[in-house]
Amino acid sequence: MTVETRAVSNIQWLGDADSGHLELLDQTLLPLEIRQLECRDEQTVWEAIRQLRVRGAPAIGIAAAYGVVLGLQRRWLSGDQVSAETVQTICQYLATSRPTAVNLFWACDRMERRGRDLWEQHSDPRALLAGLWQEACWIHDEDRAMCRAIGLHGAALLADVSVALTHCNAGGLATGEYGTALSVFFTMQDQGSPISVYVDETRPLLQGARLTAWELQQRGISATLICDSMAAHVMSRGQVQAVVVGADRIALSGDTANKIGTYGLAVLARYHNIPFYVAAPSSTFDLAIKSGAEIPIEERSAAEITCGFGKPTAPEGIQVYNPAFDVTPGHLITAIITERGVIQPVSARNILEVLNVV
Amino acid sequence: MTVETRAVSNIQWLGDADSGHLELLDQTLLPLEIRQLECRDEQTVWEAIRQLRVRGAPAIGIAAAYGVVLGLQRRWLSGDQVSAETVQTICQYLATSRPTAVNLFWACDRMERRGRDLWEQHSDPRALLAGLWQEACWIHDEDRAMCRAIGLHGAALLADVSVALTHCNAGGLATGEYGTALSVFFTMQDQGSPISVYVDETRPLLQGARLTAWELQQRGISATLICDSMAAHVMSRGQVQAVVVGADRIALSGDTANKIGTYGLAVLARYHNIPFYVAAPSSTFDLAIKSGAEIPIEERSAAEITCGFGKPTAPEGIQVYNPAFDVTPGHLITAIITERGVIQPVSARNILEVLNVV
Repeated sequence: MTVETRAVSNIQWLGDADSGHLELLDQTLLPLEIRQLECRDEQTVWEAIRQLRVRGAPAIGIAAAYGVVLGLQRRWLSGDQVSAETVQTICQYLATSRPTAVNLFWACDRMERRGRDLWEQHSDPRALLAGLWQEACWIHDEDRAMCRAIGLHGAALLADVSVALTHCNAGGLATGEYGTALSVFFTMQDQGSPISVYVDETRPLLQGARLTAWELQQRGISATLICDSMAAHVMSRGQVQAVVVGADRIALSGDTANKIGTYGLAVLARYHNIPFYVAAPSSTFDLAIKSGAEIPIEERSAAEITCGFGKPTAPEGIQVYNPAFDVTPGHLITAIITERGVIQPVSARNILEVLNVV
Repeated sequence: MTVETRAVSNIQWLGDADSGHLELLDQTLLPLEIRQLECRDEQTVWEAIRQLRVRGAPAIGIAAAYGVVLGLQRRWLSGDQVSAETVQTICQYLATSRPTAVNLFWACDRMERRGRDLWEQHSDPRALLAGLWQEACWIHDEDRAMCRAIGLHGAALLADVSVALTHCNAGGLATGEYGTALSVFFTMQDQGSPISVYVDETRPLLQGARLTAWELQQRGISATLICDSMAAHVMSRGQVQAVVVGADRIALSGDTANKIGTYGLAVLARYHNIPFYVAAPSSTFDLAIKSGAEIPIEERSAAEITCGFGKPTAPEGIQVYNPAFDVTPGHLITAIITERGVIQPVSARNILEVLNVV
């Protein structure tokens, strides 16, 4: 197989507001097939979100915003009457695509509000369409900028690192472009700093093997896939100089909930004197939560472990414990890399200072 | 499903020397199907060893010994002429079933020598058959006794433990009966000490999920299957009081090669102040090797990780590192449980003393 070295485009608008369309990378087919889904109406976007063809909180929000534009464009091209109410209808429809995606609701709300403002100002269908397309592009751009800023801060921090290890997928597939943890590696590559990455496969759902390995391969970054249980051995041989992971939720203390397996890696990194970094946007911090003890751990179905690959790999009726996340205490984290700067050492005071919420 | 609570019989001779036969549990069908393979000639045993229907070094040796008996019995029942030479022919044939199985060659040699002795003494076909059957039973019994002794020593050591964690399969399926690490749990159950066990699934080949979970379930021991990456989280919640694993090779220093993932568990156990035990027969020690640095680490094929479940789970062409074993330094091991006694603390001096080779 020839591996094409290029940036991952999981979400892209091709053309202008009037006649352009959205292309989404169908993530359900990865890594076996790279297929772009052409979206020319809001129904296709709705289906793509529902079927997880586009996944990751920021990416879903961006796709939905473009979906609003497509819904309006289609009606306008058909000669239908459009107004702020049309926008509201489309936004409400798209918001039903996933039940608990905060970024989805946020993006639909923002587009609906912008639609109202534009209609009040101009009462002109074409201006409405152009303005909403601009707003969707801004949502996309803001996310890109956040990823890039994390990448720049992280690349500076990892200046002396040539081999890193990551877990799960904190990459471009879940965001507008560069991702969070992977943005650090992508930025290093952009800057000409050679970096190679050990990728934990990340059981049970194999996001590392399926998505992270693929993203790194696409960009021509040297990636080596390992099972989660091999990380300690790789560290003991002096082959890893830094661990970089993403985060799902960070408490005021710096305690970080992330994909199951992250906490063990942090303990192993500490034992081997390897710096352990968390890369996450400021929106990941939940400062109402004082410590990790307050973060509930979602337990998922046994079948993900016993039957994750199409056929049973464990005896029927066996008891299973399948926590989706674990909590890494702040004191095991060398630094948290945000778009607003690097929090190091990790403490409530430094978090408030870097996030500028003092 | 109704789970039948009974001892695992992976190898059993049913009947007497003259008309009895061997039954092997077909391990290739586990855990989905429990099927005994009826062996009435040496060819069936040869095929069972070759096809991994019976696996684990001690178990292969025992099966081959019974295979020799079957070969002789079949000829004797057919009225063929038999002698020490017949035994030699059968032994040489069975030794070709697996290329590098030390216990297989050892068992075939032992049976061949015993055949020669018996023929010299009696020159009687029936006495030859009876004597060889006795020898095979002894090989089986010696292994059983070794497993039982490890179990007794281990159960005494774990007297205050009610929840343990294990990795891979060091159970009865690989030995004559109770296994090594699992023998500790089986013995505790025999003694009426309630024990429940977290079982690492053990990627990439899932011996924990497929074999250990099944063995514990068969004996009615409470088993909870987890992914390897979940062990740290389970430990952090105070849910594990001891880790017990097997071993493939132990150096004079106590450094222990075992299934990949063992070393990481030992580091995590140390961090959480949980005792870490290795259970292994004295034959596992390689005292010619001073430290773990001299133990070569076998690397296995990428496909075990990228395509272990029948369909690809990683991008084509991705680089993979797949070490089959890792080495846990002796200083991270609380004690080594052997059939000759417990080595604690782990040091070259204590190893030589307990193994009685000073």
